[in-house]
Amino acid sequence: MTPEGLQAAVQMDAADELAPFRSQFVSHDPDLLYMDGNSLGRMPRATAQRLQQAIDHEWAQGLVRSWNNGWYEAPQKLGDKIGRLIGAGPGQVVVCDSTSVNLFKLAVAALSLRPGRQRILTDAFNFPSDLYVLQGCIDLLGGRHSLQVFPSQDGIVIDEDALLDAIDEDTALVTLSHVAFKSGFRNNAQRITQRAHAAGALVLWDLSHSAGAVPVDLDGWGVDFAVGCTYKYLNGGPGSPAYLYVRRDLQTAVRSPIWGWFGQHSPFAFEHDYRPVEDVRRFLAGTPPILSLLAIEPGVDLLLEAGIDRIFRKAVSLTSFFIELFDRDLSSLGFTLGSPRSPDQRGAHISLRHPQGYQINRALIEEMNVIPDFREPDNIRLGLAPLYTSYQDVWETVQRLKRVVVEKRFEKFSPERQAVT
Amino acid sequence: MTPEGLQAAVQMDAADELAPFRSQFVSHDPDLLYMDGNSLGRMPRATAQRLQQAIDHEWAQGLVRSWNNGWYEAPQKLGDKIGRLIGAGPGQVVVCDSTSVNLFKLAVAALSLRPGRQRILTDAFNFPSDLYVLQGCIDLLGGRHSLQVFPSQDGIVIDEDALLDAIDEDTALVTLSHVAFKSGFRNNAQRITQRAHAAGALVLWDLSHSAGAVPVDLDGWGVDFAVGCTYKYLNGGPGSPAYLYVRRDLQTAVRSPIWGWFGQHSPFAFEHDYRPVEDVRRFLAGTPPILSLLAIEPGVDLLLEAGIDRIFRKAVSLTSFFIELFDRDLSSLGFTLGSPRSPDQRGAHISLRHPQGYQINRALIEEMNVIPDFREPDNIRLGLAPLYTSYQDVWETVQRLKRVVVEKRFEKFSPERQAVT
Repeated sequence: MTPEGLQAAVQMDAADELAPFRSQFVSHDPDLLYMDGNSLGRMPRATAQRLQQAIDHEWAQGLVRSWNNGWYEAPQKLGDKIGRLIGAGPGQVVVCDSTSVNLFKLAVAALSLRPGRQRILTDAFNFPSDLYVLQGCIDLLGGRHSLQVFPSQDGIVIDEDALLDAIDEDTALVTLSHVAFKSGFRNNAQRITQRAHAAGALVLWDLSHSAGAVPVDLDGWGVDFAVGCTYKYLNGGPGSPAYLYVRRDLQTAVRSPIWGWFGQHSPFAFEHDYRPVEDVRRFLAGTPPILSLLAIEPGVDLLLEAGIDRIFRKAVSLTSFFIELFDRDLSSLGFTLGSPRSPDQRGAHISLRHPQGYQINRALIEEMNVIPDFREPDNIRLGLAPLYTSYQDVWETVQRLKRVVVEKRFEKFSPERQAVT
Repeated sequence: MTPEGLQAAVQMDAADELAPFRSQFVSHDPDLLYMDGNSLGRMPRATAQRLQQAIDHEWAQGLVRSWNNGWYEAPQKLGDKIGRLIGAGPGQVVVCDSTSVNLFKLAVAALSLRPGRQRILTDAFNFPSDLYVLQGCIDLLGGRHSLQVFPSQDGIVIDEDALLDAIDEDTALVTLSHVAFKSGFRNNAQRITQRAHAAGALVLWDLSHSAGAVPVDLDGWGVDFAVGCTYKYLNGGPGSPAYLYVRRDLQTAVRSPIWGWFGQHSPFAFEHDYRPVEDVRRFLAGTPPILSLLAIEPGVDLLLEAGIDRIFRKAVSLTSFFIELFDRDLSSLGFTLGSPRSPDQRGAHISLRHPQGYQINRALIEEMNVIPDFREPDNIRLGLAPLYTSYQDVWETVQRLKRVVVEKRFEKFSPERQAVT
C-alpha cells in the first residue's frame, strides 16, 4: 500500500463527524482490528453500567418488584425505540425471542391472511435459518405451500427485475433479507414491497444485516411484517433478543401461532382461555430474558444520537474506500470482490473471496490481530460498523490482508473447518 | 405468636444443614422477608461475578471469538447440568427460549407421534400460559384435537384417581404442571406417567414450580417430554431462558416445528436445506440470549452442592412449620389454607386465601417489608425457597401477616388491581 492511501485515511478520519462515537465503545486492545461488527457488535461503555444497574439494583435489590418498575413494559418500550431506527411509528415493534422464532410467528401469521395462495418467494441470499424456518412452516401447515428460492447468477447480486417478475397471483408472501448476510447485497425493499402489494402478496423483511447500518423506512414503504436481530449493528450483546414489526392495521387481523401469556390481554388475571391483547404485543410469547433485553438499549441510543443518515453516509464511504484499496492492492493477490460495487446495492459489510479464504481468515485472526469472519465456500466477510470503524482501520486491515498472502502466512493453517462461527 | 414458636424457629435454624447457603445469595436489606423465590429467585453472589466475566471478558474483549470459547456449547452443557437436578442423564436437556415456546415445540412434536388420537389432557391447575399454548397448538393444527381441562373440586388438590380414569385410548398427550403455580399441589408424576403410557399416551411435564425444590426423576419415571423455567428455584435471573427435555429414544423420532439454525446439523455450513441434528439440540431454534443464559449456572451449582434430597427435606419442614403457625395464629383471622396439608402433595410454596387477599398482599409489600405475591382471586402466595429461607423468616412472616390484619393495615389499600405481577 502506498502512503497516499494512509494519508487519505488520516484525512477522512479527521473530517469524520462520527469519529467521537468510537470512544463510546469498550476496547481492550488498541491494535485489534475488529471487522466483525456485522456478526457481534462491540460493547458500548454505557452497556456495562446499564447491566450493573440491572444486576445489582433491579434484580438483587428490587427482586420481583422490578417487574412493576420497568421490566414488564421493556419489550414494547425498547421496541418503540428500535422503531425510530427502522422507520416504524410507536406501537408496531416489540423485542422478544430470537429472529428465527419471530420469523416463524410472522410467517405463519402472514400465510393465514392469504389462504388461497400457495407460494412463498425468497432468494438464495436469505439467511439459511430463515430458509429453514420457512421450510418448517410449510411442513407444519401440511405441505400445501411451496418455497421458491430465487437464484443469483453471480453470487453477488440478485436480478431485481427478474425477481419482481416472479411475484404473481399465487404468491402469498415475499420474504427476503434486506441486506444479504454473505455478499452484503441490498435489496430495493421499497420497490419489492410495492410490487408484492400490487400482486396481492404480503412482505416480510429480515433487517438483521441492515438495521443500524442503512436507512430503513418500514412505515414509508408500507411493509407488512419485519424481523431483525439486535446483536449486530445494534450492539445489543451476544444473542440479545430480536424484534418484530407488524404494521398497525394488520395487528388485530393476525395472531401468533404461539399463544403465550405475554401476548394475553390480561396475563395476570390468569384466565383459562387465551384472549390476545389488541396490539402488537400479541406476538410476545413467554417471559423475556430481561438481562439480555436491557443490554440492548444503550447501543440503540448511540445509533439514534448519531442518526441513520450520517451512519449510512459513513458506511458508503468506508466500503467505497475499502473497494478502492482492494482494487489497488488485493485484486492482484487472488482476491475477488464478493460484494456489489454500487453503494446503492450494498450494506456496511464487504466480502472478499479467495481460494484459500478459510486459511487466510484463520491467519488474520491468529497471526494478524484482525477479526473478520468466514462464510463458505471462500468468503472473508469484513464488517465496517460505522460507529467504531475508522478509515485507518480499513487501511490497516488491507495491509494485514496483503501481508498474510504475500508472506504466505496462511499456509500453516489447515483448510479443515474447525471453528463454529 | 407465642415465644415458643420463635424458640422452635431458632432451634431449627441452628440445626439446619443448609443454613450456610443463605450467605451465598445477595441481600441488600436484612429486614426484608423475601417470600417470592417461587416467582423470581434471589441472585447468587457468584452470579454477579459470572456476569462481570461474561460482559467484560467474553463480550467486550473476546468479542465474536467467544462463540468458539464456550458460548456455542452453553445450551447443551448447562442443560446437562440442569439434567442432574431433574434426574435426566446427559444429552437430553437443552437450555433455550422461554417455557411457553418450549412447550409449543414439544407439544406439537408429541402430537405428531400420536396421529390417531385427538385429546390433550391437562388440569385446571396448569399454568395459564401452558393452557394458552395448548389452545394455540390445537388451532394451528386445524382444530382436530381437543383440550380437556380436568377440574379441581376444592381448588387445592386434584383427585388423582379420577384424573387417571380420564386417560383413555383417545388421549394423545397428558401435560400438567408437576407442582401447581397457585395451590402448590404436587402431582404424582411417576404414577400419572405410568398410567398415560399404559394407555398409549405421551406425557409432558412442566417443572417450573418443582425443579430445584422437590425431587424430579425424569429418566426413572420414564417421562417423554418436559419443560421448565430457570428463574424460580434455580435462581437464574429475570426471564432467564427455559429448558426442555426429550427422552433419548424419542429424539430422532420427532422434530421441532421451528426449524432454526441452532437445530441444524451443521449450522455454519450455511446449507439451504434444513437437516436437523441427530440429538436433542434439534429443539434449539435461533441464537440464544447468552448473557441471560450464562447467568443461570451459578444458581444451579448451589442447588447441586446442597443436594435435592436435603433441599426437599427442608422444603417439607419449612412448609409444615408455616402451616403449624397458620393453624395457631392466622386461621382465626379470616385466612384459609389454599395448599395441601400433606407434604406428599405439595412443593415449596404455600397459598393463603383471604377475602381481602389483594389488599393484604399490598400492605405486606408496602408497609411490612414482606414480599409474597398475589394470585387471583384471593391467594397470597408465599414461596419458601429452601436455600435462603430460614425458619425465623417463616416465623416473622406470620407475625407480620397477623399485624396487617389485626391492625387493619390493609384497609388503606384499594382492592383495585394495579401491579402486573
